[in-house]
Amino acid sequence: MKNSLFAFLVLICGMKMQAAIHTETVDYKQGDTTLEGFLAYDDSISGKRPGVLVVHQWLGLTDYEKRRATMLAQLGYVAFCADIYGKGVRPANVTEAGALAGKYKSDRQLLRARANAGLDELKKNPLVDTNRVAAIGYCFGGTTVIELARSGAELNGVVSFHGGLDSPTPADGKNIKCKVLALAGADDPFQKPDDLTAFESEMRDSKVDWQIVFYGGAVHAFTQPDPGFVNAGAKYNEKADKRSWEAMKTFFTEIFK
Amino acid sequence: MKNSLFAFLVLICGMKMQAAIHTETVDYKQGDTTLEGFLAYDDSISGKRPGVLVVHQWLGLTDYEKRRATMLAQLGYVAFCADIYGKGVRPANVTEAGALAGKYKSDRQLLRARANAGLDELKKNPLVDTNRVAAIGYCFGGTTVIELARSGAELNGVVSFHGGLDSPTPADGKNIKCKVLALAGADDPFQKPDDLTAFESEMRDSKVDWQIVFYGGAVHAFTQPDPGFVNAGAKYNEKADKRSWEAMKTFFTEIFK
Repeated sequence: MKNSLFAFLVLICGMKMQAAIHTETVDYKQGDTTLEGFLAYDDSISGKRPGVLVVHQWLGLTDYEKRRATMLAQLGYVAFCADIYGKGVRPANVTEAGALAGKYKSDRQLLRARANAGLDELKKNPLVDTNRVAAIGYCFGGTTVIELARSGAELNGVVSFHGGLDSPTPADGKNIKCKVLALAGADDPFQKPDDLTAFESEMRDSKVDWQIVFYGGAVHAFTQPDPGFVNAGAKYNEKADKRSWEAMKTFFTEIFK
Repeated sequence: MKNSLFAFLVLICGMKMQAAIHTETVDYKQGDTTLEGFLAYDDSISGKRPGVLVVHQWLGLTDYEKRRATMLAQLGYVAFCADIYGKGVRPANVTEAGALAGKYKSDRQLLRARANAGLDELKKNPLVDTNRVAAIGYCFGGTTVIELARSGAELNGVVSFHGGLDSPTPADGKNIKCKVLALAGADDPFQKPDDLTAFESEMRDSKVDWQIVFYGGAVHAFTQPDPGFVNAGAKYNEKADKRSWEAMKTFFTEIFK
């Protein structure tokens, strides 16, 4: 009966939560570079809670990631959107986006440094229980969170949504200390079979706790209503979007126990 | 506030549920063959509810499937364990199990007939909402539920736990009317890469709503503490067991809406 009463109170708190999401833009640094992130949390509840880093897709930090951060805040987490590219560096079109994403994918050390800067900023927040931290990312950000794990970062888990899983240094898999969940479109033409095989081998050889889900009928960018371009190879898929969000929630329930 | 009160009442009902699982052995027929199934439901709640067919692994209907059926009943479903082999036909060892499973895998029409007989028996139960029915299966049973779907059976979804996914007649994928979720060990040596590729092609070409999850570090029979034999290729994996059960629950939440 006591448990039920507790659950009842949690429910009431839950109802209140949705009304009080605090958001703000946050400047922070990696080396000498200023980055502009975005913070979201529920200020109607008190006390420490798990933190979730959100890493953007190739277009940089947009309203899309801010919406995801707000959704995470509604779930009770402190969410922080990292800015990998730098303050004011926001690609105007897909050509610029491709060039920027390519630059960081070619310089994994810089990519790791930028991702870690975001993680540090999240962990500095006094509301964050630093023993319960995860990172999620979309497309380019999905690649980034795996790279963050490969850097040996201290966190409980990473979730890659339709991210490229390739690595120029697969031996770095042995640095991974957290659980890895990859969520992929079964028909994603940007997910090359050789990269998938190499990723699986990396996880296996490094004895990582890993999982991968393939959503039938889903191509690249399946969670994004506007991925910058829409064609047969990159398109929103509502079913896969909802299913992958649920998979992330279940994963968080497990890793934040 | 009304919603919270409702949730509170549901919670109380939930607490009561676990205490009252009715189970019984049920004889039924496929053609002239008598089969011996197992039924489980919560008799402390009234009214129709979704039904779940459970198909056994190669050792036939054992306590393992009965435990799963009881767990499903505790979740509020009517669960019915099918008997594919026939009343009294219970392999005494892995040699007999291999021969029996092989017989049915080589005669997919008979396998489909036996699976459909179980489904019909489940649907006949007055507690079952026949618009909300699923089938799950383990190993041999995981193969069987996909075959049930390929027969064109009317149900909302099937879940294959570490089941072989091969088909001698991949064109039959076009008969599938339900959603398909396959849960597989990433290191299952019985899951041949060619079979996986063929399964994916079958699902894709037939425009099935399908998903597949691979659990890192998991081999064959990862949900079964006693799969009949234990070696490097077939072994219980608690993490993958729990994760796959959660994946099934999430899938049911979606398909039984």
